[in-house]
Amino acid sequence: MFDFRYFTPTKVIFGKDTELQAAKLIREFGGNKVLIHYGGGSVIRSGLMKRVTDVLDDAGIEYVMLGGAVPNPRLGLVYEGIELCKKEKVDFLLAVGGGSAIDSAKAIGYGVANEGDVWDFYDYKRKAEACLPLGVILTIAATGSEMSDSSVITKEEGLVKRGYSSDFGRAKFAIMKPELTMTLPDYQTACGCADIMMHTMERYFTNGGNMELTDAIAEGLLRTVMKNALILVKEPKNYDARAEVMWAGSLSHNGLTGCGNDGGDWMTHKLEHELGGLYDVAHGAGLTAVWGSWARYVYKDCLPRFKRFAVNVMNVSASGTDEEIALTGIEAMEAFYRKIKMPTNLKELGVDATDEDLVEMAHKCAVGVSGSMGSARLLYEEDMLAIYRMSRG
Amino acid sequence: MFDFRYFTPTKVIFGKDTELQAAKLIREFGGNKVLIHYGGGSVIRSGLMKRVTDVLDDAGIEYVMLGGAVPNPRLGLVYEGIELCKKEKVDFLLAVGGGSAIDSAKAIGYGVANEGDVWDFYDYKRKAEACLPLGVILTIAATGSEMSDSSVITKEEGLVKRGYSSDFGRAKFAIMKPELTMTLPDYQTACGCADIMMHTMERYFTNGGNMELTDAIAEGLLRTVMKNALILVKEPKNYDARAEVMWAGSLSHNGLTGCGNDGGDWMTHKLEHELGGLYDVAHGAGLTAVWGSWARYVYKDCLPRFKRFAVNVMNVSASGTDEEIALTGIEAMEAFYRKIKMPTNLKELGVDATDEDLVEMAHKCAVGVSGSMGSARLLYEEDMLAIYRMSRG
Repeated sequence: MFDFRYFTPTKVIFGKDTELQAAKLIREFGGNKVLIHYGGGSVIRSGLMKRVTDVLDDAGIEYVMLGGAVPNPRLGLVYEGIELCKKEKVDFLLAVGGGSAIDSAKAIGYGVANEGDVWDFYDYKRKAEACLPLGVILTIAATGSEMSDSSVITKEEGLVKRGYSSDFGRAKFAIMKPELTMTLPDYQTACGCADIMMHTMERYFTNGGNMELTDAIAEGLLRTVMKNALILVKEPKNYDARAEVMWAGSLSHNGLTGCGNDGGDWMTHKLEHELGGLYDVAHGAGLTAVWGSWARYVYKDCLPRFKRFAVNVMNVSASGTDEEIALTGIEAMEAFYRKIKMPTNLKELGVDATDEDLVEMAHKCAVGVSGSMGSARLLYEEDMLAIYRMSRG
Repeated sequence: MFDFRYFTPTKVIFGKDTELQAAKLIREFGGNKVLIHYGGGSVIRSGLMKRVTDVLDDAGIEYVMLGGAVPNPRLGLVYEGIELCKKEKVDFLLAVGGGSAIDSAKAIGYGVANEGDVWDFYDYKRKAEACLPLGVILTIAATGSEMSDSSVITKEEGLVKRGYSSDFGRAKFAIMKPELTMTLPDYQTACGCADIMMHTMERYFTNGGNMELTDAIAEGLLRTVMKNALILVKEPKNYDARAEVMWAGSLSHNGLTGCGNDGGDWMTHKLEHELGGLYDVAHGAGLTAVWGSWARYVYKDCLPRFKRFAVNVMNVSASGTDEEIALTGIEAMEAFYRKIKMPTNLKELGVDATDEDLVEMAHKCAVGVSGSMGSARLLYEEDMLAIYRMSRG
């Protein structure tokens, strides 16, 4: 196994009525003037925003509001948020929403706390040295951004989607109330489950390191999410299933499921990022649409892990050759995706890409990873193109 | 499942040569004048202390030293540490050692940062409102104190052993270098594994809450520690086994394995605390000496959990009545304890207690928990006495 760092300072407040603790938590972390950042109007229509602003009003905490964070959140709104924070002398960010609002808030936080263009960080030109303190009220279990160090922003010009990771961006607190996710459309719930699982799978399919305890946690997490994702297909208001998925979402991306390995593979995410940038598809669905093709392309180079995955996660019988067991595991995962109505190729995703589109995505993807990336198998631009072509359906 | 808080801010630096990062980490968390607190001379004889003080010297960080923290660390040394810190204007604590040094350092930290007698906190009279910042270089995998909020101190007068838990006492950083544990006596390694497992088992055997994801993590952790504890019986210098056990020690007591339940049972720990106070036995061995008796006394009142434990952790075949399966699981755990040479009763522990001793311990134990405690089964003084009597062997 490899050496590792583990740092998850986010204070998690999990359960019923937890949004009512927002003001107390903001004060605890030194906030006096807050930017409340959110996405669409659902957090307002649901009454959540009023409950939050009521507790801020009662505590005498001032705030300004900025909505409009969209899936694959845009750089333009980040710039707008930075200006607003500077103008209003905001000293604390409160993201109310899912990964889009949180990622957008993190980018705003970097932009306020550092000189120069915030896009520099996402464009790998320099590193942030600070971030405005951030709190989260989570309404979608998916990206794990509430406990992770990462955020993903899309630049409108050229639809360039890039991620940036820094401990400075980790939230000070995360309020998690499973009921808030009960009214999500089924498709979005399933996308969230797919995304949650992929954060652990990216860390799991590696050729370097690996730690038994990390594997045991990863496998237990994947089995738990699968079981509860299937429950939520039929019972979207099942509290316990919502809670299991929500907590799994945080643990899956806070670093816990990668301790001791080489950092993970992450190529499925990178392949999806270009899809998401170009077609604006839901992130989770984009992931499942390319994963099977990626897995078939790389599994022979990472056979022990794919075999272990098949047996310990997908409950595949350990008979046959290692390759047969591994392939059966990949097929079982795709069958699970279909059960929760997630696509297993681009066609099912609703993307009718020309070969020119695939060539362009492979090129942008290769540039985005500085030429090559992957631990299960190191992939170059030609490999990325081959996987995109396999995934057309 | 129940609502929960999860807060593990400790920055973990895990792996080879990590002690060389001590100065950088102390600076990162604002330390300028350090009290290095340790136990016996082994950390000096091994050369560890010199490597640590060398990096502090190189960084220009001043320090004073205080050794002498013993297993079941004493209040007298805590008072001495508090005086030393005040006199030397210490602003950061560095514990180099295992649970004894860390717990003692936490108590010193509370004593320096709060007015009045530090024993008040351990005597449940009032709550700490701060703690001097603390870093840890861990040399024994056992108590999990490096990431936990708890510390246990023994008052010499009457040998009263009490624990105090507060987020203020959580370490700012924990340096974990598995090699440092390779030279431990086999008995101490086994005691550590027993203690690590018990921190999760205390959280697992409950009648309230329970969360599938938490259970999956707990069960995976217990299986991992058992497997690697058996490896260490034969190969005490196996790096990977040392690392698995060390990381499990932190995760087992940082809160992760209790999310969603009612807080846990903790009576095995409370029963052992009186043993440890009176006879000064090794904590891990004291735990295994009473666990089987506790389990047999309570399992019918917590049957679903004991059955699940038998099947998912102890690999017991799920045939027979629930009671039979549960009992077989308890026996399998005792058989494991014997394999790692841990006692399963007081006689094997080397404690030849009179019935008067047991009566005294049961009384002190009941007073310590304000009359009654336990989730698997609520225990009163008479129950505690019955368990002590069962455990005589």
